[in-house]
Amino acid sequence: MLSRYFPVLEWGRTYDRSVLTSDLMAAIIVTIMLIPQSLAYALLAGLPPVVGLYASILPLVLYAIFGTSRTLAVGPVAVVSLMTASAAGAVAGQGSAAYLEAAITLAFLSGIMLAVLGLLRAGFLANLLSHPVISGFITASGILIATSQIKHILGIDAGGDNWPEMLGSLAIAVFEANPWTMAIGTPAMLFLFWVRKGGKPALQRLGLPGRAADMLAKAGPVAAVALTIAVVIAFDLGDKGVRVVGAIPQGLPPFAMPSTDLALIEKLWVPALLISIIGYVESVSVAQTLAAKRRQRISPDQELIGLGASNIAAALSGGYPVTGGFARSAVNFDAGAQTPAAGAFTAGGIALASLFLTPLLFSLPIATLAATIIVAVLSLVDLKTPGRLWRYSKADFAAHLVTIMATLIAGVELGVIAGISAGLLLYLWRASRPHAAIVGRVPETEHFRNIDRHKVFTVPHVVSIRIDESLTYLNARWLEEYVLEQVAARPEVRHVILMCSAVNAIDASGLESLEAINHRLGDGGIGLHLSEVKGPVMDRLNRTHFAEELNGKVFLSQDRAFAELLNDTGEPPPPADQYLARGLI
Amino acid sequence: MLSRYFPVLEWGRTYDRSVLTSDLMAAIIVTIMLIPQSLAYALLAGLPPVVGLYASILPLVLYAIFGTSRTLAVGPVAVVSLMTASAAGAVAGQGSAAYLEAAITLAFLSGIMLAVLGLLRAGFLANLLSHPVISGFITASGILIATSQIKHILGIDAGGDNWPEMLGSLAIAVFEANPWTMAIGTPAMLFLFWVRKGGKPALQRLGLPGRAADMLAKAGPVAAVALTIAVVIAFDLGDKGVRVVGAIPQGLPPFAMPSTDLALIEKLWVPALLISIIGYVESVSVAQTLAAKRRQRISPDQELIGLGASNIAAALSGGYPVTGGFARSAVNFDAGAQTPAAGAFTAGGIALASLFLTPLLFSLPIATLAATIIVAVLSLVDLKTPGRLWRYSKADFAAHLVTIMATLIAGVELGVIAGISAGLLLYLWRASRPHAAIVGRVPETEHFRNIDRHKVFTVPHVVSIRIDESLTYLNARWLEEYVLEQVAARPEVRHVILMCSAVNAIDASGLESLEAINHRLGDGGIGLHLSEVKGPVMDRLNRTHFAEELNGKVFLSQDRAFAELLNDTGEPPPPADQYLARGLI
Repeated sequence: MLSRYFPVLEWGRTYDRSVLTSDLMAAIIVTIMLIPQSLAYALLAGLPPVVGLYASILPLVLYAIFGTSRTLAVGPVAVVSLMTASAAGAVAGQGSAAYLEAAITLAFLSGIMLAVLGLLRAGFLANLLSHPVISGFITASGILIATSQIKHILGIDAGGDNWPEMLGSLAIAVFEANPWTMAIGTPAMLFLFWVRKGGKPALQRLGLPGRAADMLAKAGPVAAVALTIAVVIAFDLGDKGVRVVGAIPQGLPPFAMPSTDLALIEKLWVPALLISIIGYVESVSVAQTLAAKRRQRISPDQELIGLGASNIAAALSGGYPVTGGFARSAVNFDAGAQTPAAGAFTAGGIALASLFLTPLLFSLPIATLAATIIVAVLSLVDLKTPGRLWRYSKADFAAHLVTIMATLIAGVELGVIAGISAGLLLYLWRASRPHAAIVGRVPETEHFRNIDRHKVFTVPHVVSIRIDESLTYLNARWLEEYVLEQVAARPEVRHVILMCSAVNAIDASGLESLEAINHRLGDGGIGLHLSEVKGPVMDRLNRTHFAEELNGKVFLSQDRAFAELLNDTGEPPPPADQYLARGLI
Repeated sequence: MLSRYFPVLEWGRTYDRSVLTSDLMAAIIVTIMLIPQSLAYALLAGLPPVVGLYASILPLVLYAIFGTSRTLAVGPVAVVSLMTASAAGAVAGQGSAAYLEAAITLAFLSGIMLAVLGLLRAGFLANLLSHPVISGFITASGILIATSQIKHILGIDAGGDNWPEMLGSLAIAVFEANPWTMAIGTPAMLFLFWVRKGGKPALQRLGLPGRAADMLAKAGPVAAVALTIAVVIAFDLGDKGVRVVGAIPQGLPPFAMPSTDLALIEKLWVPALLISIIGYVESVSVAQTLAAKRRQRISPDQELIGLGASNIAAALSGGYPVTGGFARSAVNFDAGAQTPAAGAFTAGGIALASLFLTPLLFSLPIATLAATIIVAVLSLVDLKTPGRLWRYSKADFAAHLVTIMATLIAGVELGVIAGISAGLLLYLWRASRPHAAIVGRVPETEHFRNIDRHKVFTVPHVVSIRIDESLTYLNARWLEEYVLEQVAARPEVRHVILMCSAVNAIDASGLESLEAINHRLGDGGIGLHLSEVKGPVMDRLNRTHFAEELNGKVFLSQDRAFAELLNDTGEPPPPADQYLARGLI
């Protein structure tokens, strides 16, 4: 029981030296990767670079205690950084103390929300984001993020919360581009693009073994950082307009308090909720993918608690919203991390870096960080999905497109909301028009099939309707209309059989519709019968007076129903209770 | 085509004298009933009484042109009047010009919304309101409305937007009750309660035939109005603190313009949308019930246009939001109305009344109108539904209770929103945990049943999973978890068969989950097979590479799948394309 909420108690019991070695190795590699990434994503979030480091220490320790994934690496990620910038930018100017406070408060609110949802076991809410909506959002976010960083490569000032604004702002300022900045940023970007795919083979050609070449290639950003720092110092580019990171306060994260200003919380709770949902969905997808590779399991509800604790920790240590990132988790996994302890060791590495390494980063050009971001996020842009969706399902394609367009045009928050709404509306629309068919008997069998698709036997005075959906409030109105329409179109009909083989549930609205249909058919002297009602559905119906009031019978099989009503062309059906008394129902 | 949007063109063609006579008769009866009702509901909406008359003229004519119900009587109704009071009261004080303008603007916005939804054929949105939510909302509204009118019976000042506020406000002022007002209001209320049930038998005992007694009993409110006017005049009660209607402007409705103030529209659009949805749902339910009695049909999408036109007409003629009312429609139906022309004639009757009758109403006590309202709305309070829902479905009961509590405590708008949200959340919660079963073969048959419910045959290396739900984004995550859990719990498993007989659709997220399952099972050397995939679902799957990448086969029947895999205890299954080539899939 206790280990459900503290997974560390489970894996901690079998922790030994060999696991420790694996975890330490993985932690060293992830730390090297995480330092430039943390700085870059803080920049993307509009925050001082050191905040990115702060967000990569305590949250990792908390996830190691509460998280259920063995290999997930938590910290600042691109999409959540963009969302943070959007939300904090709406309440304060970048660089102000209020902006930082808003970012910290977002982490705190998001942490509380995640933890509460986890305690309520409400992970199912993440289902609201369908795959097409998530992929549309990630693609559009990638485009937005890459566009937002172009200014740093050019060394100009530009802004904008959505794509048209960003492009317009870039177009105005592009002629003021700083050549020295471009001379740093462009090669850095090209190198990073190349090293992603070309780094490993090149290192292998130099004689390195495959695995080492792979790991070293992943340290490409570190090489870019070191190299561009050297160039800036050597040519004194800081004085020639190349913006650099500058002085980073040395030391461990400070203790910070989220704001308790209710007016601020009222403005931030919706963005915090969206950050929570997006962060959770991204993190759980990564965690599930990696867990499956080693036949491990994660607990989606406990993941909410793990991420909640991480975000609360981020807020209390001066950081900003964090979640499980794809790239770093994959590196952690590949580097051989065995338990969440690897995350705690990484936290130690980052803490050492923020204690001792930060002076070395003084001359790091912002353009290099921007190049890291651009290269990282362009891999998020997925151009194959729209075509695939178009071929498979127009509705899913529509949800995907709406999400992309809304995110690009109206920004990340409205993008998520539009995506969720479009998905729900399309779902409700389909749910309100379920599939149903008039069926007839396949000759010489007991099977009943759609009269439009098969050669089947029917009689004019009996209509058999197969409903291929549970009867819920979303289709209750449709059910009434559909059944009464079928009857209105067949004046000779004396018996209606609802074949319920695909009806998995009937809610109170569905029941009321059945009662209304029964009542209206009864007024016209038409019998309503049910066939093949599933056990649990019938159990529930028997708690009501429906079966007694039914203007017809409940049959175990469609074949029996049809056979019995086949010859009843004359009298209206006798009341159901006679059959009840004879035990026929 | 044209008659789809103008149903009048259809029924108008066969209009003759006998229909005219029926319609005229019904119109006279409904007019008599509608005059006190219109005044009363305007009072409930916090508007001058004459606005109720205005809302009962032009809207009825427009509905006669655009509506599809033969017998629906449109006009002010109790619940919508309460919602109007709540929305207008939030932006202006009762009695002010701004309050009236807000009410008119609500009618206009609601009319536009309804008409647009109708043109988009988006009537399915009304499905968002389940039966338990509607009945909860109506019950709570009835309680709120009755409570809000007690002050008029007592002759005191009280207020409040929700039940606790109303009760508190009444408790404070109750000692200032005006005895003369109570002497009018209390007997009027008791008389109206009695006449509902006891009026018809009493009149029959006096020798009237059944039908006439019924109609006359329905005119009870008119008798109460006439009698209390006489008492007020006879005893000069107007001077003794009994509030009366006072001077009502004589004449036809003025031409009015809804506000074009964007700030006002921004405040009113949400309440206008809620008024539209509630009004539409109430109206369509009444129209469908009455249409079914005469085996007629209504068109739910065209009803949106009909009600939209009525509300735009209400706005332009100084009225407030209208919809089809239950009581008056039933009277119209019983009185023999044959076509919507009866509504147009009723409009003529109300117009005559507002031209010539209004001076007679000067001394009508407000207490009488309040008594009419209280008696009318208490019949909306349904105390049987909670128990019925509790027995049938706890989830529906929860949605019902949440709606009632939210409406009573937080008012009508939040009540509707809470009801819709609770319904959706419960639906999503259930949809994210669909029913599924591990199945085995019933001995000596081709049937496969749940292993927990039946004695069936299984083998350890094959697990057959029947999914009783379409695979959509709401359960995609569950599907992955469920299947992989079943496999994780059975280390000997070499083949997984997903029995898809109840899978009516697979959306893009469902497909991605299947692909992920296929991939993960493949990593473990386990075959994934599908059986009994429905035709349209398979057609769609064939548009993708799923079948080719499937790490197993697609079988027409579960029996064939099980029979073939039964003996395959050794080797991993051959790739699917071999079977494709042999035409086995």
